[in-house]
Amino acid sequence: MKELMYGVAYYPEYEHEYRIDEDFQMMKKVGMNVIRVAESTWSTWEKEEGKYDFSILVKTLDKAEEYGLKVIVGTPTYAVPSWLVKKDVDVLATTKKGRWMYGSRQIMDIVNPTYLEAAEKIIRKLLEVVVGYKCVIGFQIDNETKHYGTAGKNVEKLFKEYLKAKFKTVENLNEKFGFAYWSNSINTWDDLPSVLGTINGSYAAEFEKFQRHLAAEFLVWQRRIVDEYRREDQFVTHNFDFYWKQDELAPFGHSYGVQPDINHYEAAKAVTLLGCDIYHPTQDDLTGSEIAYCGDSIRSLKNEQYMVWETEAQGFRYWTPYPGQLRQQAFSHLASGACGVEYWHWHSIHNSYETYWKGILSHDMKESAVYKEAMTIGADFKKIGPYLQKIIKHNKVAIVVDNTSQTALKYFPIGDAKDQPGKEFLEYNDVVRTYYDALYEQNIECDVIDVACLVERVRNYDMIVTPALYCATDETIDALKTFVENGGVLVSSFKSFFADENIQVRQDLQPYKLTDVFGMYYQQFTRPGKTKLLGKEVTVWQELLIADKDTETINYEHKYWGNYAAITKHEYGDGCAFYIGCWCDKDILKDRLKQAAQRAGIETIGCNFSVVVRNVINEAQQNIHFVFNYSEEETVVKCPYENVEDVLTGNRYVAGQDMLMQDWGTLILVEK
Amino acid sequence: MKELMYGVAYYPEYEHEYRIDEDFQMMKKVGMNVIRVAESTWSTWEKEEGKYDFSILVKTLDKAEEYGLKVIVGTPTYAVPSWLVKKDVDVLATTKKGRWMYGSRQIMDIVNPTYLEAAEKIIRKLLEVVVGYKCVIGFQIDNETKHYGTAGKNVEKLFKEYLKAKFKTVENLNEKFGFAYWSNSINTWDDLPSVLGTINGSYAAEFEKFQRHLAAEFLVWQRRIVDEYRREDQFVTHNFDFYWKQDELAPFGHSYGVQPDINHYEAAKAVTLLGCDIYHPTQDDLTGSEIAYCGDSIRSLKNEQYMVWETEAQGFRYWTPYPGQLRQQAFSHLASGACGVEYWHWHSIHNSYETYWKGILSHDMKESAVYKEAMTIGADFKKIGPYLQKIIKHNKVAIVVDNTSQTALKYFPIGDAKDQPGKEFLEYNDVVRTYYDALYEQNIECDVIDVACLVERVRNYDMIVTPALYCATDETIDALKTFVENGGVLVSSFKSFFADENIQVRQDLQPYKLTDVFGMYYQQFTRPGKTKLLGKEVTVWQELLIADKDTETINYEHKYWGNYAAITKHEYGDGCAFYIGCWCDKDILKDRLKQAAQRAGIETIGCNFSVVVRNVINEAQQNIHFVFNYSEEETVVKCPYENVEDVLTGNRYVAGQDMLMQDWGTLILVEK
Amino acid sequence: MKELMYGVAYYPEYEHEYRIDEDFQMMKKVGMNVIRVAESTWSTWEKEEGKYDFSILVKTLDKAEEYGLKVIVGTPTYAVPSWLVKKDVDVLATTKKGRWMYGSRQIMDIVNPTYLEAAEKIIRKLLEVVVGYKCVIGFQIDNETKHYGTAGKNVEKLFKEYLKAKFKTVENLNEKFGFAYWSNSINTWDDLPSVLGTINGSYAAEFEKFQRHLAAEFLVWQRRIVDEYRREDQFVTHNFDFYWKQDELAPFGHSYGVQPDINHYEAAKAVTLLGCDIYHPTQDDLTGSEIAYCGDSIRSLKNEQYMVWETEAQGFRYWTPYPGQLRQQAFSHLASGACGVEYWHWHSIHNSYETYWKGILSHDMKESAVYKEAMTIGADFKKIGPYLQKIIKHNKVAIVVDNTSQTALKYFPIGDAKDQPGKEFLEYNDVVRTYYDALYEQNIECDVIDVACLVERVRNYDMIVTPALYCATDETIDALKTFVENGGVLVSSFKSFFADENIQVRQDLQPYKLTDVFGMYYQQFTRPGKTKLLGKEVTVWQELLIADKDTETINYEHKYWGNYAAITKHEYGDGCAFYIGCWCDKDILKDRLKQAAQRAGIETIGCNFSVVVRNVINEAQQNIHFVFNYSEEETVVKCPYENVEDVLTGNRYVAGQDMLMQDWGTLILVEK
Repeated sequence: MKELMYGVAYYPEYEHEYRIDEDFQMMKKVGMNVIRVAESTWSTWEKEEGKYDFSILVKTLDKAEEYGLKVIVGTPTYAVPSWLVKKDVDVLATTKKGRWMYGSRQIMDIVNPTYLEAAEKIIRKLLEVVVGYKCVIGFQIDNETKHYGTAGKNVEKLFKEYLKAKFKTVENLNEKFGFAYWSNSINTWDDLPSVLGTINGSYAAEFEKFQRHLAAEFLVWQRRIVDEYRREDQFVTHNFDFYWKQDELAPFGHSYGVQPDINHYEAAKAVTLLGCDIYHPTQDDLTGSEIAYCGDSIRSLKNEQYMVWETEAQGFRYWTPYPGQLRQQAFSHLASGACGVEYWHWHSIHNSYETYWKGILSHDMKESAVYKEAMTIGADFKKIGPYLQKIIKHNKVAIVVDNTSQTALKYFPIGDAKDQPGKEFLEYNDVVRTYYDALYEQNIECDVIDVACLVERVRNYDMIVTPALYCATDETIDALKTFVENGGVLVSSFKSFFADENIQVRQDLQPYKLTDVFGMYYQQFTRPGKTKLLGKEVTVWQELLIADKDTETINYEHKYWGNYAAITKHEYGDGCAFYIGCWCDKDILKDRLKQAAQRAGIETIGCNFSVVVRNVINEAQQNIHFVFNYSEEETVVKCPYENVEDVLTGNRYVAGQDMLMQDWGTLILVEK
Repeated sequence: MKELMYGVAYYPEYEHEYRIDEDFQMMKKVGMNVIRVAESTWSTWEKEEGKYDFSILVKTLDKAEEYGLKVIVGTPTYAVPSWLVKKDVDVLATTKKGRWMYGSRQIMDIVNPTYLEAAEKIIRKLLEVVVGYKCVIGFQIDNETKHYGTAGKNVEKLFKEYLKAKFKTVENLNEKFGFAYWSNSINTWDDLPSVLGTINGSYAAEFEKFQRHLAAEFLVWQRRIVDEYRREDQFVTHNFDFYWKQDELAPFGHSYGVQPDINHYEAAKAVTLLGCDIYHPTQDDLTGSEIAYCGDSIRSLKNEQYMVWETEAQGFRYWTPYPGQLRQQAFSHLASGACGVEYWHWHSIHNSYETYWKGILSHDMKESAVYKEAMTIGADFKKIGPYLQKIIKHNKVAIVVDNTSQTALKYFPIGDAKDQPGKEFLEYNDVVRTYYDALYEQNIECDVIDVACLVERVRNYDMIVTPALYCATDETIDALKTFVENGGVLVSSFKSFFADENIQVRQDLQPYKLTDVFGMYYQQFTRPGKTKLLGKEVTVWQELLIADKDTETINYEHKYWGNYAAITKHEYGDGCAFYIGCWCDKDILKDRLKQAAQRAGIETIGCNFSVVVRNVINEAQQNIHFVFNYSEEETVVKCPYENVEDVLTGNRYVAGQDMLMQDWGTLILVEK
Repeated sequence: MKELMYGVAYYPEYEHEYRIDEDFQMMKKVGMNVIRVAESTWSTWEKEEGKYDFSILVKTLDKAEEYGLKVIVGTPTYAVPSWLVKKDVDVLATTKKGRWMYGSRQIMDIVNPTYLEAAEKIIRKLLEVVVGYKCVIGFQIDNETKHYGTAGKNVEKLFKEYLKAKFKTVENLNEKFGFAYWSNSINTWDDLPSVLGTINGSYAAEFEKFQRHLAAEFLVWQRRIVDEYRREDQFVTHNFDFYWKQDELAPFGHSYGVQPDINHYEAAKAVTLLGCDIYHPTQDDLTGSEIAYCGDSIRSLKNEQYMVWETEAQGFRYWTPYPGQLRQQAFSHLASGACGVEYWHWHSIHNSYETYWKGILSHDMKESAVYKEAMTIGADFKKIGPYLQKIIKHNKVAIVVDNTSQTALKYFPIGDAKDQPGKEFLEYNDVVRTYYDALYEQNIECDVIDVACLVERVRNYDMIVTPALYCATDETIDALKTFVENGGVLVSSFKSFFADENIQVRQDLQPYKLTDVFGMYYQQFTRPGKTKLLGKEVTVWQELLIADKDTETINYEHKYWGNYAAITKHEYGDGCAFYIGCWCDKDILKDRLKQAAQRAGIETIGCNFSVVVRNVINEAQQNIHFVFNYSEEETVVKCPYENVEDVLTGNRYVAGQDMLMQDWGTLILVEK
């Protein structure tokens, strides 16, 4: 397609009357061109074991061809029918909290043989039915796949084999995990302690790594089946989702950070087209940062475009968009490199569970304020589509993320644990997102890369940021050292490099093997208490840095801790290394990151949040600049480009000229 | 009896020495005339299976006859003996949280055959022993009966039969509950999803309705047994209880609103005398509103008098009454139409669990400040009894309550769910009680009627109020429409009429089928955020109303939502309909309700809370006005009646005359 | 040893390389002389059942002899190996929350035969290996022993036998526990209600008393085994721990008050040398009060010296000591009568669970700021050791503590229960600690004695304080009455004497049998609401005291409760009794306690917190005064002694002379 994808997840199965024609007419009127179907309704396709009924689906595809809509067909394996569980109750995963009860989606044991056999059958039957349709442009394998905590006897058995293969001897395992502690060491593999009851952080984290691996393998297995059927022009995609945070911004939750229950980088090999869902705060809390973070993360998996398979139209009562926001959100996805946007979902559901996760249509199924705004997006997508083909970014900054560090900091929390009475709870993703946002708000664009590809890609960047990279292999550390030696700029937060890949704390001065690079070391850390830094409160965590003479420092302000540095900057080789030893005020962090970017020779633009600028390059090698005003107040921006045209309005601007930005407004500027 | 009932729940079984004579002498000195006995001590009456010992009971009844006390005998079935559970562990109900453990009351499976057989035996034995006593004036069947969450295999089986009978085919069931969602649809009845794990709100709510039905049927079953024994002059009653809310006013809880675990209206058919318990905040938090709300609810079940079988004497540490409060509370019950008051309980218990739920006597079993105040009540009850025979109310306003809406709003909460981090939690009963209290505080008296009797009784009223009537049948909606057409005034809150009786959201403009009546419609709603209304914060929920031209409106104050109405008033037919589209300030609500009452031609009196006026009509058709001062400050009220006498003091007042009200004072004015 | 013990818990098993020589050299450099080994690593000593390997231990002991370090060997029974649980899953205790999962320590059923058999074997094997070493000066049996909630079928069976022996008949049991309530009474012992589900506070508390007894008996059993092996010069000790409170001061918890899960007084008979661990807030929250309270408690068990087997070196991020604090803490322990201090532990652990409970060495295993401060302590301990041999205290004040009252107030909380929405939660230990701290902060030293030894020791004291002594036997009450008659001063808090030893509330005026002693009685109590006392808020609890004419009173300030007394003072016999009827401001409490101490003729010193003075007498009968400045500000204290020498510095002071105290400073003054 030489156009942007624009559409919805569509569930005619959920409708209580036939209205496919009416729905498709309404979609066409909006300007939509794609729908995603069939995922999550296995019991509709297979009413009893072996009793198939694809009539609604066939009707939908026939009509899609008639109306000229493209279709992505999802495999329905993430919600199991009741008959499958009646057949074998072990289809429901056993987790730390016991066995799941039937009812919800995403509760099955993804390595259970009964499940896998039934899943394979329905996938094959489905593909046979749909693969021949011209309108079917691709397949989504499963949906938001994760490991669902599966930890039954069969999984423990597989884990034992995995451990044997990895660690060879029980002696080595005892040593690597420190099993002697509290009498957990073993003398035969059969005495392996329970993964459910263990208090050994290394063992627990290794099991979670193994669970993530099972989830990735499950997707690869589905990909192989689909490959047996699909045409060359049909893609395989997946709807990756992010760590889901419930907070006061969004009590039911929103996309936030690194997904702990599957490794996106490992699982990305299962797809030919990257994809994800992004649900984000809006109304007064719309900043674009979740859209940018999630987009940058998915794009960075392969440095390729991706599709937003799901995002909110109206969603919950706190996501009802203000006029203009739906438009701005759609453009924001494109600005991160998306090739299109699909809403979840077409129409609001009238019952069951997600009744208040509203779609493009409200429950009345009629045109509404939101429907009308979606129409303007459809029209604009047609207009700007030609400019936005095969867009990509060439960022010079990378943030490094790591599932192992994330798990480790769950078992060894930075501040207080969630169930403790202290109020200093800080999780891995808070650090990642704060460092990301500090760049984002200063218009310093970055990739978000998995530590697994750091060695391979490190040369692509001028500046590397490691937020809470708690567990680091020797190889990672060596690569970063070389990176700085060769002229790179490294910015590391507190808690980086403290432990190895088995979550074993390094037995040497910290930051491990990098004290010469950072020009400092530390042996102690503390809760900040009354400590201040540059006049502002420090909270949760501070390391007591002892700097070398040639290191620039900012010290803590405190009767006793004032003798120690909080932040250091040190020239090393041809490069430079910054270390931020505490959880500090965001403005202080932003200053440091800006300084680091300047040291790395990265150009920054003169405007700051609420004005956000995001840049892409299209297939014609044109530089395109998205300029957003994430605010309910109008603002004026001086044009920072020599000669550009806003493809939305046709307005042209030259350097220094005032560009008026509406509340929640967007400009899409093409360099002329 | 031509007197008011006044007494206590009495448990000689709990006493550690013989003191029935002393107790009865002390009760007589107080002026008490009734006691309730025998409920909750099954293990005392049947020490082992078939080994009976009613000696304490017989002694109590003999002595009651001697002292001239009337007795209500309770069946002891709500607390099972340990031997019964040892016989059959399934007597303990299995719920969502697993099987209850033995120890507490109200933990049995009320459809378990072992339980029912044993319960029937002890009821029959008990009745044989007591039925002949002249002092026994009635029987209480069970106590505070509810379904206790019973959901074991046997209950699931009964539920399947119930569903088959109600929905006929699985296709119909799939359709009505939207079972296609997340692959929950079934092809045979045997594949019914688990009621314990389900995420389908319609299915979960239907199961709760079924559980309520089991509880009501259990009471009917007991009534039938009692009917085989009782004399015509002996009544059958039950002690209904209300939704129990734990809050900072009363950390252990207090009576608050609609009971979700049995439907009072359905169960009321099991009794010949209505009864309930009412526990309410007191001290600085005594407003009389719980006493009024609960009384109005129970009376409205049949438009008959009721007995307060339990209310606090001293209760918990936060219920120790101020001087004068115990008196005022007793009169408050009468003002709602009670035929008497019994305290729970005579003496404080010295051990076990409710040790700090103190009775008339403290643990020292001696006369005390509370005992002495109870004596003044006894004396007054004698004096005013003749004026208060067969009192009843003729209210022109009704509030409509509904268990189905209540359940639905548990699964689809108005604001944030209880386990979510947002702080905007609002439950069904909060809406009901706020609307009720807004009337109460303005001295607009009302009935509280179950939606099930709306069609039958709608003609009795001039004004109907529907707080959060989320689920409404077509029949209900039609009745309300006709009511307005015929001149009635309807006041509906947000969230009314949104779904049908299966909790399926209506697929049309909202308020469903009533847009012409209200003269407006809406398609969207939102968390209010910064929205204000008449200068005051709106929280939790607001609907974005789009009003017709002839509709009076008050709009939101907000940059974007200001285009929408919050409150509407619309003349329709001969009547008028008010809609309040958000959770707003209580004073705004009170203004609207007052305006509505005036439109309905309902007279209101010139005084407001803390002065509360409640009116009854006695068997002599005399108008009697209770005037209360719920305050620790004295106040003066202008007499609003032409010529009245306070039967407590004999003081007479004419219109406009100053009536001095003590702190926590009461006047009982009879029109002359 | 004619020196102070100074050392660490040492786990060479946890080290990833051989470094015993390096460790011992570093310890010697610090000035340490003892280590504790072998506890908690059973799986290292017995790799599979019957497969022993004590090689690390033997190496450690050989090296200890070489380096001249003394060793305490712990039995490793508090953490079971995985093979033992695979052999018999019932080794894991079944509690109210179900069966423990393998992984943590302290999860076994201490009466399980498989466990006991295996434990006995490993103890005997271990003792055979180590008992002959000269360096081994003593044994620690188990560690922090408690009952771990064990309540499986076997424990219920033992409990039944215990009840039969104690109560003889079911009728007596029914009566004593009030089992008639809610139909819990029984007719045969086989019908005993479940201890897990019971709501009967008396029954639940009796079971907890029984569980405490099992824990004490377990230690006695270990002692008997060790006695078969040990030399006469080798002591037997235990590491008792305290109620562990998690609060904002220390989110992971800290030592706080009376241990509910074993009775220290009963269990103390198992040891020849008292011992405990004390973990306490530090940094800005270092007050010395936990060190003092815990020390006073352990010392008072036998009026003997005790060893601090564990205390924090660096611990958690909130315990990183300020410069000077580690020193001050060490001296603080000695000031309560400790014979030495061991840190937990030598080096920080690199993995597993307590990774952030840091030892003397940080994870880098190098010298650090903390290591260097520990060296100064080592040097000082050598210097002051000779002055501090066999030190003891002769206190004239005792605070009485009681496990039964503690349990009772868990089931019948003083204010709101923990899971209730009210915010007035107050637990037994809060009362104990507030009363203790009110004395501590005024430099009134006291013993902390178990109620079980009150009758025996009451004559030793001039003043007795009973904080929340809720359950009191007749014997206890009589002893206190006689104590006052004979000239003693009694200070009792609210909630004292309310119930008997079966948690049955007394059926008489309160305070039970002591109304003449206190010169007042009360029948009612209440949540304070708006009540004030001497202008300050009263919270949680107040009793409405009615005083005799000759009783000094302070009344509440409140419209209604102002008629009642809050605090009373009454001369009785030759003595005097104070009663504090509410949870009041700490300053009011301190005034009362000071007044009481003066009435008792107890000398108090002119300085108050942050200056704390603690006194001991050594074997040479010298009076030694520890003076502490628990503050980050320097201060000056006027010397209150005629002629003293600070043995740390050699400085001499005479009465009235200025003594300069550093921040976190200590003086150790010997009278000359």
